[in-house]
Amino acid sequence: MTIYDISEKAGVSIATVSRVLNGSSSVSEKTRQKVLDVMEACDYTPNAFARGLGLNTMNTIGLLCTNCSDLYLSKAVYYIEQGLRANHYDALLYCTGQDKESKENALKFLLSKKVDGIILIGSDFISEKAEDNSYIQEAAKELPIMLFDAVLDAPNVYSIASDDFQSTYEATLALLSAGVKDILFFYQAASYSDSRKLAGHKEAMSKMGLPISPSLALAFSGSLENINAMVDTLQNASKSGTTFHSIIASNDTLALAALKYAKQENLKVPEQFSIIGYNNSMLTSCCDPELTSIDNKIETLCGELITLLMEVLAGNPVPQKTMLSGELVKRGTTTF
Amino acid sequence: MTIYDISEKAGVSIATVSRVLNGSSSVSEKTRQKVLDVMEACDYTPNAFARGLGLNTMNTIGLLCTNCSDLYLSKAVYYIEQGLRANHYDALLYCTGQDKESKENALKFLLSKKVDGIILIGSDFISEKAEDNSYIQEAAKELPIMLFDAVLDAPNVYSIASDDFQSTYEATLALLSAGVKDILFFYQAASYSDSRKLAGHKEAMSKMGLPISPSLALAFSGSLENINAMVDTLQNASKSGTTFHSIIASNDTLALAALKYAKQENLKVPEQFSIIGYNNSMLTSCCDPELTSIDNKIETLCGELITLLMEVLAGNPVPQKTMLSGELVKRGTTTF
Repeated sequence: MTIYDISEKAGVSIATVSRVLNGSSSVSEKTRQKVLDVMEACDYTPNAFARGLGLNTMNTIGLLCTNCSDLYLSKAVYYIEQGLRANHYDALLYCTGQDKESKENALKFLLSKKVDGIILIGSDFISEKAEDNSYIQEAAKELPIMLFDAVLDAPNVYSIASDDFQSTYEATLALLSAGVKDILFFYQAASYSDSRKLAGHKEAMSKMGLPISPSLALAFSGSLENINAMVDTLQNASKSGTTFHSIIASNDTLALAALKYAKQENLKVPEQFSIIGYNNSMLTSCCDPELTSIDNKIETLCGELITLLMEVLAGNPVPQKTMLSGELVKRGTTTF
Repeated sequence: MTIYDISEKAGVSIATVSRVLNGSSSVSEKTRQKVLDVMEACDYTPNAFARGLGLNTMNTIGLLCTNCSDLYLSKAVYYIEQGLRANHYDALLYCTGQDKESKENALKFLLSKKVDGIILIGSDFISEKAEDNSYIQEAAKELPIMLFDAVLDAPNVYSIASDDFQSTYEATLALLSAGVKDILFFYQAASYSDSRKLAGHKEAMSKMGLPISPSLALAFSGSLENINAMVDTLQNASKSGTTFHSIIASNDTLALAALKYAKQENLKVPEQFSIIGYNNSMLTSCCDPELTSIDNKIETLCGELITLLMEVLAGNPVPQKTMLSGELVKRGTTTF
């Protein structure tokens, strides 16, 4: 329901509806009452900015992000803010943390702000349990929701993601082709996109007749700021009898920890130990040898998200799910 | 001029003014016209949110940041957003880039949005040339401006910064005490806080009777994403005849590049080559040896900034300049 619908139903111009919303004195009391009646009948609540500015938009998009200081998510926030700005939209930022209730409250809060749309940045908002995603489906009844780097099939929800499954599938095959054995998959617990990455890895292993043992999928549950805790996790796995000569990590920080682990174990990288990271971030070049990493094209993803959002806001049809391919960028931590 | 002033001048209640602003039908046409007349006479423009919500605040703070994907600035954005949220304020994010005109336009834009205050995140908004800071002084006539990690002496401008001068002064003395010679200061061109850091370094050198040659203050002007360009800059300096056996870097990324340079030159760190970084970021632990770095206590700075801003918004007197001490965190790239 928009200002246009109200204008049509009330049989007055959009300018008149706008004037009523602004409390302008140039509208007759009769016309004003008619417009207000239609609004009431349609249960129409003009958003705060619309009421203020006489437009049916506050030209503001809510950005939800668990942690905008994360190396990866901060890039997404940056590119998305730039894209919104270029389209004359403001970005209202809300960092939720990982707590489920906090995420739900944040979404409700942005709805109450009557923003024009909401972008959920990062896959942390999506759960594999369908019922845990109902808060997003509910919100999508009121305004369009864009998912960056996650996928949810629901009305008025638009997903833009890198094909994580395919990327790790191909990376695993590349390692196996190079003769690498005993690949450890090192990922973050409770991350939707990481579970997709793990699934791609498993699929490739299975295809090559190498189903992986549970111990070769190692979850790290600490802070991404704490590289030494990641190294400890790897060392504990090794001490517990898990044998691995290669690591595919679900992000570059975990991959850096893998490199640090290999050095502490005096394993020569890449000759004795191969490492593939994910995100192709600046971290890839801060170590020696430099990290081979999967580029999930974050800037392209963000650009595509903005393009789609503008189409959605203009009322044009767009695909609900857009998947872009990643690319393996080869550097010094792999032999190929 | 606020909604309260209008209510007083029109001789009606605040609720009535609010109803007029909201276009409510429960106000008589006569009262409505009286309120609108007073507003016109007072040249009163209710801010967008106030008009929408019937309150005289939008409870929103504008955050200006040159680049919120920067490792350091993204942390500040995160802590500041969290602090605002805890105080029931929204964060309207605007990334400006480095262009001067873009910074000025962004500030004007946020003023037009009638936010309650503006936080300039990072020292990139301040120039050593006083006339270049007039856009901030102008804006501060309309609302309070908080500077994070920069200092400007002007009415209604509140500066919260780490004492960069003192921190590098002490770091330099620590290196000299450890017998290190030929210290290269590696910093970012056109950064206000970096120029403070350089000044502290120079002061310490001068105090010890070791005035530095211009070639030992090396500016890097490229992107902080491009570590290899930083390494090239160091190698070019070396090839041009600059001798250095130690580097104090103005951030951890530059320090990582210094470490990479030392490794490429087969210089043993820290025995033959000492390195001190700045910011004490997660980068300090992603390399081997781990980086000695100056902790400028970013979380404390952000917390202090929020506390001060809330006092300012409540109309309470606060100091215009708050300087906090940094701390040298010793790790593997120094001998002490």
